[in-house]
Amino acid sequence: MLRDNTTRRRGLRHFSPYNRGVERSDGMRWRTVGAEYLFCNPWCSFRVDEVELPDGVRIGYGVLESGGFAAVVPVTSDGRVVLVKQWRQPVGGFTLELPGGGVEAGEDPREAVQRELREEAGYEARDLVHMYSVHTSPGRSTEVCHLFRCRAEKLDRGPEPEPTEFVSAVEMPISEAREKASRGEITAATTVLGLMLAGGS
Amino acid sequence: MLRDNTTRRRGLRHFSPYNRGVERSDGMRWRTVGAEYLFCNPWCSFRVDEVELPDGVRIGYGVLESGGFAAVVPVTSDGRVVLVKQWRQPVGGFTLELPGGGVEAGEDPREAVQRELREEAGYEARDLVHMYSVHTSPGRSTEVCHLFRCRAEKLDRGPEPEPTEFVSAVEMPISEAREKASRGEITAATTVLGLMLAGGS
Repeated sequence: MLRDNTTRRRGLRHFSPYNRGVERSDGMRWRTVGAEYLFCNPWCSFRVDEVELPDGVRIGYGVLESGGFAAVVPVTSDGRVVLVKQWRQPVGGFTLELPGGGVEAGEDPREAVQRELREEAGYEARDLVHMYSVHTSPGRSTEVCHLFRCRAEKLDRGPEPEPTEFVSAVEMPISEAREKASRGEITAATTVLGLMLAGGS
Repeated sequence: MLRDNTTRRRGLRHFSPYNRGVERSDGMRWRTVGAEYLFCNPWCSFRVDEVELPDGVRIGYGVLESGGFAAVVPVTSDGRVVLVKQWRQPVGGFTLELPGGGVEAGEDPREAVQRELREEAGYEARDLVHMYSVHTSPGRSTEVCHLFRCRAEKLDRGPEPEPTEFVSAVEMPISEAREKASRGEITAATTVLGLMLAGGS
């Protein structure tokens, strides 16, 4: 079940901030000897790499491959932020997070953000500004989040989520969302990062 | 290969900010019908849940189970932050991140931070303050990061990393680390979050 995953990640490669933070030349690097895919679907894969550590010891190392996603801090003209509430199977409950979604192969993360904000929340993204591109869990996963902020302008037609997306939009003053993050009521790392660093009151 | 993972996560459950942000009662919840573990080792597991969506459709959903970790923004009396450089197999390169490590079952995340700061970087953590406990990737993984800040006091004996940890400590003014995060040269989400929100100049 070995395969080349170049194609699925192509959508991220062209986005300049991606991988600037990853240095590749050093005597302490691990050497990858083999890899076996245990699971592949369109959204994520799981592989076990056989790696040789700098001291020559070989171990199996589990890696989650997950396509990148883009998320946005959408702030309305009256200082409210638009979030989405959705079920998150890994944490076994509902979370409040920034609107966003997967970046498809070859897609600009800005387009992904605009599409998801329209579909999930019914807002148009204006004055979109890139904040950070971060690895959500570099010790476990290939996943990258491209984080943006924008002015959010309400669309007359309202949200139009995909039939398989069970999300609802939730609006609140950004100050309230920040308090929720401080109290541990909003817990997604990239959502906390975006809310706290997007500026505005 | 089904198993109960209550025990391995016990170390996180007692830490109060964990899971306050996860709401469990709502008509849009997914129903878990089954689960199969494809991989388990002491550090992470990968399972595929069979879930029933609110519209009755059943799908397989891949979940990475990863024990929580604790990380700290350690700032010296002259405004320098202590980071660690290490190989990260999922991103295929070296990263600069906050010192930290896994929270063992039953362990207080504060103890984990103090131990890792001593071992990886050769510093004692003083005035440890909890900042956030966040889900690194709630759509893909159970992983939680408990984020702290502290004053860092250099130990005479220097770092004493575990023989299997190939990490090196890197010190720089916290202002420089923040610039690196802004330029995309530091990319781990929880490291960016910690650096930007730890306060101090």
